[in-house]
Amino acid sequence: MQIVRGGVTTARGFKAAGVSCGLKKSKRPDLALLFSDRPCVSAGTFTVNRVRSGSVVLSEERIKKGNSQAIIVNSGNANCCSGDREIQNAERITALTARRLGLDENKVLMASTGIIGRPLPTGKILKGVARLVKGLNANNGSKFAKAIMTTDTVHKETAVTISIGNKKVTIGGAVKGSGMICPDMATMLAFFTTDAAIERSALRTAFKDAVLCSFNRITVDGDMSTNDSAFIVANGAAGNRLIKKGGKEYSKFLDALKYAALELAKKIVLDGEGATRFVEVLVKGARQKKDAEIVARHVAGSSLVKTMIAGGDPNWGRVAASVGSSGVRIDAKKTDIYFGKTLVMKNGSDRNVPRNILLGMFAKKAIYITVDLKSGAGLARIWTCDLTKRYVEINAEYES
Amino acid sequence: MQIVRGGVTTARGFKAAGVSCGLKKSKRPDLALLFSDRPCVSAGTFTVNRVRSGSVVLSEERIKKGNSQAIIVNSGNANCCSGDREIQNAERITALTARRLGLDENKVLMASTGIIGRPLPTGKILKGVARLVKGLNANNGSKFAKAIMTTDTVHKETAVTISIGNKKVTIGGAVKGSGMICPDMATMLAFFTTDAAIERSALRTAFKDAVLCSFNRITVDGDMSTNDSAFIVANGAAGNRLIKKGGKEYSKFLDALKYAALELAKKIVLDGEGATRFVEVLVKGARQKKDAEIVARHVAGSSLVKTMIAGGDPNWGRVAASVGSSGVRIDAKKTDIYFGKTLVMKNGSDRNVPRNILLGMFAKKAIYITVDLKSGAGLARIWTCDLTKRYVEINAEYES
Repeated sequence: MQIVRGGVTTARGFKAAGVSCGLKKSKRPDLALLFSDRPCVSAGTFTVNRVRSGSVVLSEERIKKGNSQAIIVNSGNANCCSGDREIQNAERITALTARRLGLDENKVLMASTGIIGRPLPTGKILKGVARLVKGLNANNGSKFAKAIMTTDTVHKETAVTISIGNKKVTIGGAVKGSGMICPDMATMLAFFTTDAAIERSALRTAFKDAVLCSFNRITVDGDMSTNDSAFIVANGAAGNRLIKKGGKEYSKFLDALKYAALELAKKIVLDGEGATRFVEVLVKGARQKKDAEIVARHVAGSSLVKTMIAGGDPNWGRVAASVGSSGVRIDAKKTDIYFGKTLVMKNGSDRNVPRNILLGMFAKKAIYITVDLKSGAGLARIWTCDLTKRYVEINAEYES
Repeated sequence: MQIVRGGVTTARGFKAAGVSCGLKKSKRPDLALLFSDRPCVSAGTFTVNRVRSGSVVLSEERIKKGNSQAIIVNSGNANCCSGDREIQNAERITALTARRLGLDENKVLMASTGIIGRPLPTGKILKGVARLVKGLNANNGSKFAKAIMTTDTVHKETAVTISIGNKKVTIGGAVKGSGMICPDMATMLAFFTTDAAIERSALRTAFKDAVLCSFNRITVDGDMSTNDSAFIVANGAAGNRLIKKGGKEYSKFLDALKYAALELAKKIVLDGEGATRFVEVLVKGARQKKDAEIVARHVAGSSLVKTMIAGGDPNWGRVAASVGSSGVRIDAKKTDIYFGKTLVMKNGSDRNVPRNILLGMFAKKAIYITVDLKSGAGLARIWTCDLTKRYVEINAEYES
């Protein structure tokens, strides 16, 4: 596998565009389009929030129906909590986009992100579609990645290549996400493109797998969005022998997809609202994997742990308190905690590690916390960021 | 029932003291003692955190054994995560206190609050015990309430009186709690005294009931402490006819105790770390009470909802997103949201309430959010506070 510069237009046959249509007061780009020059097999994972955007409902239905060829994305408005209009809005916007692209409307998907509960200014978007289609270009991956941003401070994209037989296959992706990031199902907007020729069922299985071990393992603030969607479209332009489930080629593809997804998931955490530090919580020695995951999510979600990291304060007692209160049956007297590779609590008790060593560790940009429950083989990793005053500022001042 | 000025020494036969013994760098009082001139029936509820302070373990055991007559409390150190020494520390401290008071040591309980993972400076406390006992006085309720504080900004006490037969019965209480407040079991340190004559089993049932509908219904930051303890001691000095379970007198006592507990629980929320606003989340119309509680806790725990309130921003879409993601099966198309008495979302859709009306509501010090799921009779209330930059400051700068 090779890591290359690029994003959603790095794979062959994909074009993208990003324009401003007036949804954001800042006049920043707020409308993006992704297009493949031929039909794609597609897969998606969507928020499990019971309050869902009409854009999510429409895309989920269309992915079930069959092939996809374009995705239109607006930022600045979630198209959510505004009643039956939501789906009508998404239908009108995708219908016009389809007409301009010469496609059946069922081949066009849609995603939205932004303020909830404000009717989508559909007129503004419809007016922008012509310019958007005109702007389609194979070099516009970054433009696409920028137009889907909300409180993100950087655009986030990645690309990798692998060889399948003697053909080069590319996978590229772009994501947005900074707040309202919670570890359950897809937790932001993510778009992957690949020129691999792959069976639909293989693509769906691989994508589900990749999302589970990347986007579903991060948390910024524990709040799950109404609009979370992750898409992958595969157009076969690489001309490789069709990838089917099982076998070496499938594994190769899956590994590359997992890598790309994890890269982008980590970028979301690094760009977490107000975040100054990347945090990995690894829980091992749990009775079951599920237990390890519950404890890791609980620690990664603790406001006291996250503020302590923001303050550079190596107060492992807060980690211990959080481990004990996850609801999982643990044995406190067997529990070890490590900061980096240093054992700071052994069998539930202080190890008296000199404070300057701990302080040095907490001055770093990446903090690794390991909890060993010493009760089994269950293991899980969750990635998060610190909780800073800036997070509160961003979210107290986000204009509704 | 009458609400009176007072606290833990308002009921007859109780004395208290608060001194500084050097656990806190600030030199503020950090050692408190509560004493009854005769043995009390007692009850307690303790943290369900699996990582627990030795002080909690000792008190829970002694309450099971029989009567209680004194409680010694230290602030500044949690006596937790320091191994077997924890229980030995608690034993030594309560033994000396018992000797000074002329009591059997099993009649002395202990509670601790403060930094986790640092060995308790038992020597300092032992040196303070003589002064503490000497300082016992029936007017020292507030001194007691002050000496148990950590990040609290105000001391918190309350007292009420009722008539049982022709006797006046008093219930008084003091609590500490400001951060690490999470809604599961007792969630801070709370001490109640009463001069009621009451059967032990009646006291225990009443106390459990009172804690469930007060301290178990508040959340500041979702972090559950290792040291949470709530105590009640009843010395019978009022000379009333013995209160037994069931009957009018039990109900009267229970109502007064619930009132006092709820008052103190709300005081904790109002003094939540960095809090500027009191928030009530009421969920009704759930299929079951349990569902209402899950949704209410989820909304009250949402960082995005809490920062929005800190910012005075009436962004009800965040409430909707939180309601949808609690895991409870709700029907988004039937859900209503009210801010105060104003319906802002009806059947999952915007009601277009003028922004100036909403802004006015969110400028108030107490914010009432009601969610009506319109699917049954389940109802629950949870109290919380906003999430401000000051919360992050306090917890990023709390010196470990």
